[in-house]
Amino acid sequence: MIETIEVRRIVPSEKQYAWTFGGADPLARIKPGEVIEVFTEDCFAGRIRSERDLFSKVCEYPYVNPQTGPFYVEGAEPGDTLAIHLIDVQPARDWAASVTVPLFGALTGTHYTQTLQDPLPEKTWIYRVDRASDSVRFQALDSDFRTSFPLEPFHGTIGVAPAAFEVRNVLVPESFGGNMDTPEAKAGATVYLGVNVPGALFSLGDGHYTMGEGETCGVAVEGAMNTVLTVEVVKGTFAEWPRLESDEAIMVAGSYRPLEDAFRIAHTQIVQWIAKDTGLSVMDTYQLVSQAARSRIANVCDANYTVVAKVPKRFLPEIPWMNGLHPAMRARAAAVMAARKSR
Amino acid sequence: MIETIEVRRIVPSEKQYAWTFGGADPLARIKPGEVIEVFTEDCFAGRIRSERDLFSKVCEYPYVNPQTGPFYVEGAEPGDTLAIHLIDVQPARDWAASVTVPLFGALTGTHYTQTLQDPLPEKTWIYRVDRASDSVRFQALDSDFRTSFPLEPFHGTIGVAPAAFEVRNVLVPESFGGNMDTPEAKAGATVYLGVNVPGALFSLGDGHYTMGEGETCGVAVEGAMNTVLTVEVVKGTFAEWPRLESDEAIMVAGSYRPLEDAFRIAHTQIVQWIAKDTGLSVMDTYQLVSQAARSRIANVCDANYTVVAKVPKRFLPEIPWMNGLHPAMRARAAAVMAARKSR
Amino acid sequence: MIETIEVRRIVPSEKQYAWTFGGADPLARIKPGEVIEVFTEDCFAGRIRSERDLFSKVCEYPYVNPQTGPFYVEGAEPGDTLAIHLIDVQPARDWAASVTVPLFGALTGTHYTQTLQDPLPEKTWIYRVDRASDSVRFQALDSDFRTSFPLEPFHGTIGVAPAAFEVRNVLVPESFGGNMDTPEAKAGATVYLGVNVPGALFSLGDGHYTMGEGETCGVAVEGAMNTVLTVEVVKGTFAEWPRLESDEAIMVAGSYRPLEDAFRIAHTQIVQWIAKDTGLSVMDTYQLVSQAARSRIANVCDANYTVVAKVPKRFLPEIPWMNGLHPAMRARAAAVMAARKSR
Amino acid sequence: MIETIEVRRIVPSEKQYAWTFGGADPLARIKPGEVIEVFTEDCFAGRIRSERDLFSKVCEYPYVNPQTGPFYVEGAEPGDTLAIHLIDVQPARDWAASVTVPLFGALTGTHYTQTLQDPLPEKTWIYRVDRASDSVRFQALDSDFRTSFPLEPFHGTIGVAPAAFEVRNVLVPESFGGNMDTPEAKAGATVYLGVNVPGALFSLGDGHYTMGEGETCGVAVEGAMNTVLTVEVVKGTFAEWPRLESDEAIMVAGSYRPLEDAFRIAHTQIVQWIAKDTGLSVMDTYQLVSQAARSRIANVCDANYTVVAKVPKRFLPEIPWMNGLHPAMRARAAAVMAARKSR
Repeated sequence: MIETIEVRRIVPSEKQYAWTFGGADPLARIKPGEVIEVFTEDCFAGRIRSERDLFSKVCEYPYVNPQTGPFYVEGAEPGDTLAIHLIDVQPARDWAASVTVPLFGALTGTHYTQTLQDPLPEKTWIYRVDRASDSVRFQALDSDFRTSFPLEPFHGTIGVAPAAFEVRNVLVPESFGGNMDTPEAKAGATVYLGVNVPGALFSLGDGHYTMGEGETCGVAVEGAMNTVLTVEVVKGTFAEWPRLESDEAIMVAGSYRPLEDAFRIAHTQIVQWIAKDTGLSVMDTYQLVSQAARSRIANVCDANYTVVAKVPKRFLPEIPWMNGLHPAMRARAAAVMAARKSR
Repeated sequence: MIETIEVRRIVPSEKQYAWTFGGADPLARIKPGEVIEVFTEDCFAGRIRSERDLFSKVCEYPYVNPQTGPFYVEGAEPGDTLAIHLIDVQPARDWAASVTVPLFGALTGTHYTQTLQDPLPEKTWIYRVDRASDSVRFQALDSDFRTSFPLEPFHGTIGVAPAAFEVRNVLVPESFGGNMDTPEAKAGATVYLGVNVPGALFSLGDGHYTMGEGETCGVAVEGAMNTVLTVEVVKGTFAEWPRLESDEAIMVAGSYRPLEDAFRIAHTQIVQWIAKDTGLSVMDTYQLVSQAARSRIANVCDANYTVVAKVPKRFLPEIPWMNGLHPAMRARAAAVMAARKSR
Repeated sequence: MIETIEVRRIVPSEKQYAWTFGGADPLARIKPGEVIEVFTEDCFAGRIRSERDLFSKVCEYPYVNPQTGPFYVEGAEPGDTLAIHLIDVQPARDWAASVTVPLFGALTGTHYTQTLQDPLPEKTWIYRVDRASDSVRFQALDSDFRTSFPLEPFHGTIGVAPAAFEVRNVLVPESFGGNMDTPEAKAGATVYLGVNVPGALFSLGDGHYTMGEGETCGVAVEGAMNTVLTVEVVKGTFAEWPRLESDEAIMVAGSYRPLEDAFRIAHTQIVQWIAKDTGLSVMDTYQLVSQAARSRIANVCDANYTVVAKVPKRFLPEIPWMNGLHPAMRARAAAVMAARKSR
Repeated sequence: MIETIEVRRIVPSEKQYAWTFGGADPLARIKPGEVIEVFTEDCFAGRIRSERDLFSKVCEYPYVNPQTGPFYVEGAEPGDTLAIHLIDVQPARDWAASVTVPLFGALTGTHYTQTLQDPLPEKTWIYRVDRASDSVRFQALDSDFRTSFPLEPFHGTIGVAPAAFEVRNVLVPESFGGNMDTPEAKAGATVYLGVNVPGALFSLGDGHYTMGEGETCGVAVEGAMNTVLTVEVVKGTFAEWPRLESDEAIMVAGSYRPLEDAFRIAHTQIVQWIAKDTGLSVMDTYQLVSQAARSRIANVCDANYTVVAKVPKRFLPEIPWMNGLHPAMRARAAAVMAARKSR
């Protein structure tokens, strides 16, 4: 029975990368229930390969953060919600890179938080993946210090075509998802995105092998990914802001500025979602979320900042969140993974 | 000689309204030096006509804030700057409207500053234009109080197609201009917008008969406009953020959140502009701007907030700002207006 | 009759300067109706006297921004509002200074908006007062450029002891007033401050000979002042946030971060004040203020940022604002000034 | 040997509560190395005891959030840093309370984020402590739903007298510590606070039995505490912003608005601390922190918002942080706890 789940592999050519959410032609059409494996290039479009490669020299805005997609999901209509379950998210290379980009990052003036000061120096760090220990190795540039971080791969960017006829650059996170940079978008998680256009047109990319909370310098440990995923459509339910679900928790991502507005969006939305779907009163839910939230800062560097409100399910009434899609997709994922291991 | 300046009148049909910056086909092609007269519908797409018309009942997002355009300007290439000189900005009707929109405005929670509170009530106010006194009349809804504001017409929205392949909703202000809601965009002013795509593709709309600083409730005294304008192209100079010029002052509009970032953008840009074009040192210019700025808050309600840094020319070295285009276009404007009056 | 108004002159010794709002012993007791003339030292405590005096070398935090006061106003009790009418605000010297302070100002990272970048260079500019033309002369440091700004003297700092047992540094603006840096606090204006402690304990200082909107570099044209003022007490009315009144307008100062919260405070408070005192409905007032406001950015550099909501009286119902104290104090001021001129 | 560690118990009378940081007389003097056990009342000053007790009816601002202290630490001088090691933090009651307060909390307009909307309803929830399961029980008000949260007690408020002659209300977090509301201030943690006045004058209170990230509704599960702690002084080192240390991590708390400024303060400070104390370059440290941070949002409701930058020590060079005080105090704590258990 396991063998019956076909996995279609999709590797875009360089010319096929998507640089926007919305406004790009579909790379492929997929059906609800289908399983695909996609390759995503790193956010540097693969141009940074050594410490000598400085971002401003080898990368060329806006050709950064290439997305694999968009995928036209059959049956997805405006007003529905697309559920993307990440089955497996694996580094596609044994190295990754991080850099500083002039006037980008949380601890510097930027193109939006403009100041008259000189930018910080540009640097590139190359990380090695150590499969044996499931870690990535950091080597300081200015000293002998080295250390390792656990490999915690996820997609910094995943989104659908925006509403209101908009086309957004792939560096932007907003209500359509996009460059949220949340480590919660990892294998085992389901990402729910409200559908704004026929087919939803979702893309993903920006593989991170690991990242600290907030993506402080603006850049994670960036690497290409091989990712297996499957999709479903929640008909007639519209997620105004991105929702996520893991086995343990439900989440909402809010992305805007200032950072407190990202927090407000995420937490208002999760309160309203819980209240609506469980029947708890809004005030009881507000209280419950206030004590239960295990929320995380995603990014404080992108065009909008992102906070992910996260509430463990064990503190909540037991209901089938989003029509119970997550456990169903988890089961399919288990079958896929079992089949892959048995190969 | 006056008669030689032809004024082409362009009135879009309802189907021709533009709902985005970028992503729309040109309504017309115009040449540098050409003078056009355009009609712009009000931000409600003309649907609010009495106090009984509530925004949420008669308007349908995203079909709000229709723009007249886009105009393809011949010779405008990415890296250039488009100069739009507003010759005449006249109310096209003898009435205008303002409303409160649920979860929109500076003194309420919004879709971005989300809270769990109930929205404010929805109301509509109809203003009468009094040509004799050049004013608009306010009538309170809940009492007999009435008062008048001076007629100070301007365009809340004017912009070009964005960079980085983006298409933005007409309610958004950013580096491409857009829904800045600054009263400085009035007759006699030149608006400079960096060109991102061939032809620049500028549009305008959102006529305001008058407005307070900050557009506090989110909505000005909104009305249709007949506007006469002319354009030029500054070759090889790119205005990163919108610049404006009047006879008395140069200005830069910064639009982002939080509001201090809008302030920082506007003032950093004007310091760098002045320093670069006059040869003053950056620190001397920083000091000069700190004492000379007559900046105004434009909006604290849109998707991005806007501040306009404004420095009177009389405090600055005498140079021909932006190649001296403004005085040249002023002269053309004077000829046009003289011809119109003589008709 | 004019001669009967006695003006008491108060010049603090250096040891008597106040460095806080709250927590300082009264410099003097004054009675409602009394007229005093005070000397205020500049914000550098007089230590910057030439271009060679750099802030970080000659000034010693927290001994900056010395205030003259506090004054114990007889009869002022918590729950009342103190009205301070500025009769005359005159430069006490024929020169003034401005500087850049490391990590202070709107266009640099600061102690609160921390970044890893190097600070901007430290500079000092000395301005000359030209009484003949009522202006101050700017001389560039790095070139021959010079220009003049009109002399527009005001007090950057004026406040009372805070509520909730707090003592605040004189660089902070908040609901107790303080370092608001609004040019509206000039001769002819009445400043209303809610009284938190017996006697109100108001102080003032931080004379500015002129300043741009926002005090961009963090420092105005700073100079010592001779200021004539008189006070009254509004019994039983508490101004939650500082109010100001001129012959033409009523105002509220909001001071907090981010800047939109300063805007929200100022405008919410002025809407509520107008609605309460005129009987207009809150929604009508919200609409009215949205079109009538002529608000100004005060500072975007202090510990809290300040916006002053300003509504011209001519757009409002005619009522005696704050018990009609302002016109009464204006009359007294006129008498004082007439007497002084006749000397 | 264990018995030689004396634990002095200090229980303030109601009249002895401190309502400010700074400006209060010492409750007691303690010596470095001394161990004390203190009782802290809940943030409601004990006035909320049932669901019928609404905050605005029974509490009286500013008599909220009573602190136990201040303690004068012998030998602590301005320029030093006080190290407070929390040995044991235990609920002093078998119940706790949470409430909604009008115009306070993250998902409502507030006294600083002012809007014209109606406040949310006022509610009180009483939680039961279940010692057997180390949890607190939530009971919905509007339905039968109940759930439990793990007991995770900590002090929401801990701080010293501020710099610059300031006295701050106990609801404020800033560089002196104060109402940071971070769950990291729990048993086993050392809190480092820069000393601004002789004796440091530290206080603590605001016991939380548990709390979600961000303290969304503005109020945690609030309860009285019995807390055992010991102190040391780091001579000649000044922590500009509060530092924390656990066995696993070092941390810095940043508290300001907007929330990104709290993030910037915390992360800039931890980068500079690590770089300075380990000898790593600033840019290498910036990169390291960007991938290593496990930072948490503390509060998005107080007068300033708080983010705690947190870096696991295992990712960093092995050095004795803050003179190795934390492990030394841990050892003393172990001895104290062993002695208490043996009683």
